[in-house]
Amino acid sequence: MNKPTRIFTDVDYEKDGKQIGWLYLPYSTTRSAYGNIAIPATVIRNGDGPSVLLMAGNHGDEFEGQIGLCKLIRTLEPKDIRGRVIVVPGINLPAALASARVSPIDGVNFNRAFPGDPNGTPTYAIAHYVDSVLFPMVEFFLDLHSGGSSLDYMPFVSMRTSGDGALDGRAMAALRAFGAPLGMVWAHTIDAGFAQTAALRHGLVSLGGEFGGGGSVSREGLQIVERGIRRFLVHAGCMPAEALPTEVSRPTRVVEVRNRDYFVLAPDAGLFEPLVALGANVEAGEVCGQVHFVDDPGREPVVARFRASGTVVSQRHLGRVERGDCVAHLATDWNG
Amino acid sequence: MNKPTRIFTDVDYEKDGKQIGWLYLPYSTTRSAYGNIAIPATVIRNGDGPSVLLMAGNHGDEFEGQIGLCKLIRTLEPKDIRGRVIVVPGINLPAALASARVSPIDGVNFNRAFPGDPNGTPTYAIAHYVDSVLFPMVEFFLDLHSGGSSLDYMPFVSMRTSGDGALDGRAMAALRAFGAPLGMVWAHTIDAGFAQTAALRHGLVSLGGEFGGGGSVSREGLQIVERGIRRFLVHAGCMPAEALPTEVSRPTRVVEVRNRDYFVLAPDAGLFEPLVALGANVEAGEVCGQVHFVDDPGREPVVARFRASGTVVSQRHLGRVERGDCVAHLATDWNG
Amino acid sequence: MNKPTRIFTDVDYEKDGKQIGWLYLPYSTTRSAYGNIAIPATVIRNGDGPSVLLMAGNHGDEFEGQIGLCKLIRTLEPKDIRGRVIVVPGINLPAALASARVSPIDGVNFNRAFPGDPNGTPTYAIAHYVDSVLFPMVEFFLDLHSGGSSLDYMPFVSMRTSGDGALDGRAMAALRAFGAPLGMVWAHTIDAGFAQTAALRHGLVSLGGEFGGGGSVSREGLQIVERGIRRFLVHAGCMPAEALPTEVSRPTRVVEVRNRDYFVLAPDAGLFEPLVALGANVEAGEVCGQVHFVDDPGREPVVARFRASGTVVSQRHLGRVERGDCVAHLATDWNG
Amino acid sequence: MNKPTRIFTDVDYEKDGKQIGWLYLPYSTTRSAYGNIAIPATVIRNGDGPSVLLMAGNHGDEFEGQIGLCKLIRTLEPKDIRGRVIVVPGINLPAALASARVSPIDGVNFNRAFPGDPNGTPTYAIAHYVDSVLFPMVEFFLDLHSGGSSLDYMPFVSMRTSGDGALDGRAMAALRAFGAPLGMVWAHTIDAGFAQTAALRHGLVSLGGEFGGGGSVSREGLQIVERGIRRFLVHAGCMPAEALPTEVSRPTRVVEVRNRDYFVLAPDAGLFEPLVALGANVEAGEVCGQVHFVDDPGREPVVARFRASGTVVSQRHLGRVERGDCVAHLATDWNG
Amino acid sequence: MNKPTRIFTDVDYEKDGKQIGWLYLPYSTTRSAYGNIAIPATVIRNGDGPSVLLMAGNHGDEFEGQIGLCKLIRTLEPKDIRGRVIVVPGINLPAALASARVSPIDGVNFNRAFPGDPNGTPTYAIAHYVDSVLFPMVEFFLDLHSGGSSLDYMPFVSMRTSGDGALDGRAMAALRAFGAPLGMVWAHTIDAGFAQTAALRHGLVSLGGEFGGGGSVSREGLQIVERGIRRFLVHAGCMPAEALPTEVSRPTRVVEVRNRDYFVLAPDAGLFEPLVALGANVEAGEVCGQVHFVDDPGREPVVARFRASGTVVSQRHLGRVERGDCVAHLATDWNG
Amino acid sequence: MNKPTRIFTDVDYEKDGKQIGWLYLPYSTTRSAYGNIAIPATVIRNGDGPSVLLMAGNHGDEFEGQIGLCKLIRTLEPKDIRGRVIVVPGINLPAALASARVSPIDGVNFNRAFPGDPNGTPTYAIAHYVDSVLFPMVEFFLDLHSGGSSLDYMPFVSMRTSGDGALDGRAMAALRAFGAPLGMVWAHTIDAGFAQTAALRHGLVSLGGEFGGGGSVSREGLQIVERGIRRFLVHAGCMPAEALPTEVSRPTRVVEVRNRDYFVLAPDAGLFEPLVALGANVEAGEVCGQVHFVDDPGREPVVARFRASGTVVSQRHLGRVERGDCVAHLATDWNG
Repeated sequence: MNKPTRIFTDVDYEKDGKQIGWLYLPYSTTRSAYGNIAIPATVIRNGDGPSVLLMAGNHGDEFEGQIGLCKLIRTLEPKDIRGRVIVVPGINLPAALASARVSPIDGVNFNRAFPGDPNGTPTYAIAHYVDSVLFPMVEFFLDLHSGGSSLDYMPFVSMRTSGDGALDGRAMAALRAFGAPLGMVWAHTIDAGFAQTAALRHGLVSLGGEFGGGGSVSREGLQIVERGIRRFLVHAGCMPAEALPTEVSRPTRVVEVRNRDYFVLAPDAGLFEPLVALGANVEAGEVCGQVHFVDDPGREPVVARFRASGTVVSQRHLGRVERGDCVAHLATDWNG
Repeated sequence: MNKPTRIFTDVDYEKDGKQIGWLYLPYSTTRSAYGNIAIPATVIRNGDGPSVLLMAGNHGDEFEGQIGLCKLIRTLEPKDIRGRVIVVPGINLPAALASARVSPIDGVNFNRAFPGDPNGTPTYAIAHYVDSVLFPMVEFFLDLHSGGSSLDYMPFVSMRTSGDGALDGRAMAALRAFGAPLGMVWAHTIDAGFAQTAALRHGLVSLGGEFGGGGSVSREGLQIVERGIRRFLVHAGCMPAEALPTEVSRPTRVVEVRNRDYFVLAPDAGLFEPLVALGANVEAGEVCGQVHFVDDPGREPVVARFRASGTVVSQRHLGRVERGDCVAHLATDWNG
Repeated sequence: MNKPTRIFTDVDYEKDGKQIGWLYLPYSTTRSAYGNIAIPATVIRNGDGPSVLLMAGNHGDEFEGQIGLCKLIRTLEPKDIRGRVIVVPGINLPAALASARVSPIDGVNFNRAFPGDPNGTPTYAIAHYVDSVLFPMVEFFLDLHSGGSSLDYMPFVSMRTSGDGALDGRAMAALRAFGAPLGMVWAHTIDAGFAQTAALRHGLVSLGGEFGGGGSVSREGLQIVERGIRRFLVHAGCMPAEALPTEVSRPTRVVEVRNRDYFVLAPDAGLFEPLVALGANVEAGEVCGQVHFVDDPGREPVVARFRASGTVVSQRHLGRVERGDCVAHLATDWNG
Repeated sequence: MNKPTRIFTDVDYEKDGKQIGWLYLPYSTTRSAYGNIAIPATVIRNGDGPSVLLMAGNHGDEFEGQIGLCKLIRTLEPKDIRGRVIVVPGINLPAALASARVSPIDGVNFNRAFPGDPNGTPTYAIAHYVDSVLFPMVEFFLDLHSGGSSLDYMPFVSMRTSGDGALDGRAMAALRAFGAPLGMVWAHTIDAGFAQTAALRHGLVSLGGEFGGGGSVSREGLQIVERGIRRFLVHAGCMPAEALPTEVSRPTRVVEVRNRDYFVLAPDAGLFEPLVALGANVEAGEVCGQVHFVDDPGREPVVARFRASGTVVSQRHLGRVERGDCVAHLATDWNG
Repeated sequence: MNKPTRIFTDVDYEKDGKQIGWLYLPYSTTRSAYGNIAIPATVIRNGDGPSVLLMAGNHGDEFEGQIGLCKLIRTLEPKDIRGRVIVVPGINLPAALASARVSPIDGVNFNRAFPGDPNGTPTYAIAHYVDSVLFPMVEFFLDLHSGGSSLDYMPFVSMRTSGDGALDGRAMAALRAFGAPLGMVWAHTIDAGFAQTAALRHGLVSLGGEFGGGGSVSREGLQIVERGIRRFLVHAGCMPAEALPTEVSRPTRVVEVRNRDYFVLAPDAGLFEPLVALGANVEAGEVCGQVHFVDDPGREPVVARFRASGTVVSQRHLGRVERGDCVAHLATDWNG
Repeated sequence: MNKPTRIFTDVDYEKDGKQIGWLYLPYSTTRSAYGNIAIPATVIRNGDGPSVLLMAGNHGDEFEGQIGLCKLIRTLEPKDIRGRVIVVPGINLPAALASARVSPIDGVNFNRAFPGDPNGTPTYAIAHYVDSVLFPMVEFFLDLHSGGSSLDYMPFVSMRTSGDGALDGRAMAALRAFGAPLGMVWAHTIDAGFAQTAALRHGLVSLGGEFGGGGSVSREGLQIVERGIRRFLVHAGCMPAEALPTEVSRPTRVVEVRNRDYFVLAPDAGLFEPLVALGANVEAGEVCGQVHFVDDPGREPVVARFRASGTVVSQRHLGRVERGDCVAHLATDWNG
């Protein structure tokens, strides 16, 4: 994968100061033969020091990170930091402008597209740029998610295990420094082109997180994001600890998802009525909810049950389901 | 408007017992030359007595009413009532199956389509059936809404003033009997084809209400709906008061929307960050939120302010806005 | 309805000879500000005599009539006739070119659009032209159909009762002259904008017919159409009887559809398995077919039964059904 | 047509000064239950005096007027005028933002939608606002067009005859004052919902014009527009003559389109090769161009000929044609 | 191609008894971040013995196999067999639910997608599962087709030659055992990702077949399918011969398609009139049919001729053609 | 890339005479299971001699080449030449018939698809045929472009440098022989799947060119194309020099594009007003144009400036821009 990117930019990653510019991905269409997708990228640099990549808009319909980074771009000045902070608030811009999880141009989920392809469709080309140009420039990476249109999440910061204990330990330290009430360790997932997995291949201290959902903007989630970003920059060594307001925050409860049984799938298509609340603690076998049939209301609803015990950290937000949709998933205390 | 409906049905509104059937609207398409849209309709009848129409699915992406009525259909038996209860849980079925506010067939908002047209597109033909066939059969009408995909609402039951004081008094009595924590009186809106307005023309005691939003299923809203339906049936005289569980409920706080200044519109297109919480009490001039530009993050956000004082009873749910979208609206105590 | 048509044409209906030209309906779009929909129209005239309108393409996905009239246009010469034959082989041309029942431009079913509207969408404007310009010019009308994409039909010629016994008698004589094996009398249908109903309002001797189906070209149906057209022209007095080949044809069996119970509707959405053959004679209560669920194959199929006795003259062609689709309809001998 | 508009606005037409605001048309959709289409409207007023409406964006893909009015809004100050200038640079905003002739929301051509309908689809509701609210406020009206995506035009200012000689005389004076090299008198067209026709019903001195085409921005056309707007304001009495730069302009050549024979239609679908230049003088019978078949290149091209003599003032811009598209039209000197 | 599948399932292929479950393919979209495509799979097992895979829904618009397998799933019990029968009635479920040949999700033809790709679009991921998980589990494979929306077929069972004479002989024995009136040997086709070709690479005894067409359900074809499945299970050794009803069936006529000249392509776009019947025997040079132009009916039709002699085993079903569509193909007696 | 093409054809490239036939690319869809995309290809051969490939329709919305080659096909006879001329006037036929730059089937830009893939989507399969079948047959290649829907170009013939000085010299000789007023040398572009780059890999003398734009047919550009084709055939040795009319043409001015700074990108989305003319000579820093906001006309326009000096050889044709669209590009005299 040593093919060069086709993306060019008007920011200079090596220059001191603050530059608010764009990444340009050539994209030739009927309405623009020599068109480019213009993705905002900001570089704030003040001499030597750590390099951090802050990213949102991996999924276009997740907004707390996008807003948090827009605010950071306007307020963070070179004098506030040392080293380099690269801020990309809407990395899959076509998806962000469409309020969609996947790009409206190629239908691709950016978070399944790594390591990308410079000659692939736009989502692959953008992933390739992050993987081949941005990741090699930084030591710390923060990828801000929020559940998207279809899911509601208890807000949490997260990390993904890499198999390298030292790296995982540095990530756990960063996760605790971020200061969210809840922290998630993703361990069981197979490699499927995630930005996080790709970042681990580059040896980055890499955090994710889900800070809301339902395609909405959570005021609580946004507050966690805004505080967490600054704590992350302090933890990375880009900002002095004194830059943080003195607040007492509870230690982070760390949980994990152990296997596929933590997920409940819709057993039929219809209207899903949740029968437990987000955040509830449930037992295996307990009823999770039931599917109703508004086009055939005399038909008995079909019940879905939990197959494990734990805390409901995610629920389907949208009322209508297809068979196979995830309607809830659990987490249990991390025994890392 | 004395043109006959083209809708036919396999339920007999005059027969005792419970019939779960369908309304059939002829709809000829390439995939079905002699097709019909089949809309579920249930009639539960037990001799003489009041007639009540319970309806949901006016907007397809509002689910508490749809689920509440599906559950009622399976559990309410003729022996439980006297008179007649007509239950239509998904009146604009094409919209309900598409999780959309407006019909995917004709793009029409059912709640702007009254009094309808039997030879118009499907949404108009369905509205005409409700107006010309169902409304004349009943004395009480309940139309269950929930804010839809785009709005979050504090759950409330509502009525619309008719200009006929006696009828309005009977509606207010029904509204208080429904037992929701909040009640809304809509007064200022001009006639725009609402189901409620049409029902008032028929002299019905008519309630609406918003019981959630965001395209989701609110467990709290569903509970208010399920209790309220049974209280409404008791109030209408279809069920004995003893049928209700003994619960103490707070009296309903009744509010109203006085004019257009209660609404805040998005001043630009972008990502809307709300700066107050749903349910907050605000003053005129206070900041409501601001619009960020993820494609141009260096641009200053554009601020939206409240133009009146009151309680924030509704907020935009979806993060992305176009200029002119309602981002919040207020209500103040009813001085009816 | 005295508004003038906006359609203009390069054929002169009053001139002797054969003119193959077009009707032009102004239709302004982004791709053609001054565009016109060009609908072929042929006039063959030889002095005084009866005037006949032969039309196909009422539904764009019914082809025997379209092909039969294309062949007639190339072979019928003024010297073969007296009077005037107007041939419009693809009246709703946008639908014909899209192989669709309804127009791809406005989604309107031409056979529900009469009497039309000169300022309405294209389908209404074309219907208005037929109603206000062509119908007043002729005494005989033939509208060739074929079941369309969704239905298979036993081929038949048809008429619709007008309430005027003398006119109906003249139509029945024409129907028998057409010489199809089967003839249908449509009586029970309410006025819904049919071309046939509109033609009756103009006092025309008017025939329809279904000559195939499934979106295909039936060789048998095309043969019936080609012979029937010439017999119809002889019957109308436009051609001498000697122009017909001497063939012995069986007398037409005449049937009718008495009421809505002759139709069987799909009781659920899924795959419909027909359990009787087209042309079979069935009894009320007999099984018509059953709906299977390929996404949930363990679910029991849902059975549909005939509600009347008679001959199965039409069956659904397409395998997949939605609830409410007509899956079969019956006819019984006409007792006119 | 005395139904009230549903459009509200934040500009006050009666107030002195310059207000740049919006017209809000309520438009309820799945993505915005309480949404509004926000159409920019500017009012510049300085005491008593004539009232003028300047409008562009009637067709969304015609840009010289849109740009000219955007520039006017930013530069024209109350002190520069007397009376009132209302400027609406993108009246059918959904079409303007989509670069489309017709609205992407309802597919309606704004210039066929007059007098509009307040309860119709958005394009009809906007037309109704112009007709019922704006036209009664003004005495002069300028509606700036440009040929759109599909046509190239020699730039001209235009008027439409009203049947009222005095009014037509005042319009001709305004047309000559506008100072374009070419002026067009449209006489033969039947009423088809044009903004111009509607303006004449209100007795306005009303001008149109085509200032470019091909979906492009003509620098020459824009210059004619910008000069013409100021001359029109002077002619209307809103500005002193001294406000104009002293330039010598040629008198306007005035032409007309006498009948349908001035238009040449594509005789088949394919690639149209024009064989005369825009602006050429041609004779009846001369070849206009020919249609080639790139999918069947051995087929002989089909030739289109002029049916009248005159100057080619308009040609089809886009290479591909459907049968019935206008490929050129002529004009001849006005003999008004 | 040793990448693991991402599909998981709730059936256990190694367990005795009957399990009706689903294959779950993770498919993340805006409407379901953690969604899965749920494809029904049934396993019926009774101890040791042969393993057979029965599949339909390779093309979504071919229904006899889908219905036949749905019926088998509900009626075949473990006690009826020995060994294992895996039944997948709708393998490309998105296509089956859309009545489409190709998947509506990715536009891919499942029968051109082998050996698939676990990280490709859904159709490739499903093909990969069949190739890498199901094929290695079985010795016999039956893939039920039907011509689809566009073609009508004389019903036949088929095999594809592998180049391995012993394997081909076993397939021919199975083909004859299936007992259809007609059998086809596909020899000339190059490898293009067919399920059959992939099965041959795994050494399976593999049959296909076309049992109807036109997007319809053939009662005759379904009967051949239902009988053939049971005969195939007997032949494979899963069922005792006594399980079959005693019926006399004619021996299978075996035919083949020798080269590209057996196919007739539409010579132009328009309405295709077939001039021979399905099942007819024709000579090279004979007219197959002709293309008419309903938008230009005076134009001479374009004739298509057979380029070989043989039996017409397939004809285009749909009336409208594009240049290059197959309108008929022949077969001749197999000289294997 | 030694996989064989799946395209077959009815022309024989080795036979003397003129054959107008088609390339058939198998393309299986719901509407045509055994369909083929039929791309016209003409072979004109007269004994031994040079072989030339003339191609247009690389981009479907560029018409001068398509028309020029259609005319050549009908007029060039074997006796006029020696050797072989292969003419493909609409190579990406689906795009050509859709007037689109990219294929409507797969959204792929043909000129980014080389060397193609025989099993890829149609655009890749066609590119593969050109690369693997046509290029090896010829020594000269001409690929006729025109700017497409979005750009206006000063007409020019072009070549691309190969790194092989001898080959480049032969291309420059051919470029000068073509005789256009302007010639372009493309040097800086990285390999991105261009047809030209692929042709160079085969060692062909290869010319391109842009002969108009805006989705229109330029009469001047077409004249340059028609003359240039014949001069190119003479230069290649297929035609005698005497076959050319004696005309004096100016020598070609040869220019080049040196780097990315020659391109100006739109700095925001809106309406772009060009402030210089096509063909103008400009200085670095000069204003190129400005973006206006018709939905927010009070906002200041955003200015775009040239970053280099040179001649404006290309401008954006369409009025509306997105950020990142190319609005102009420069060229300067070639210092090859």
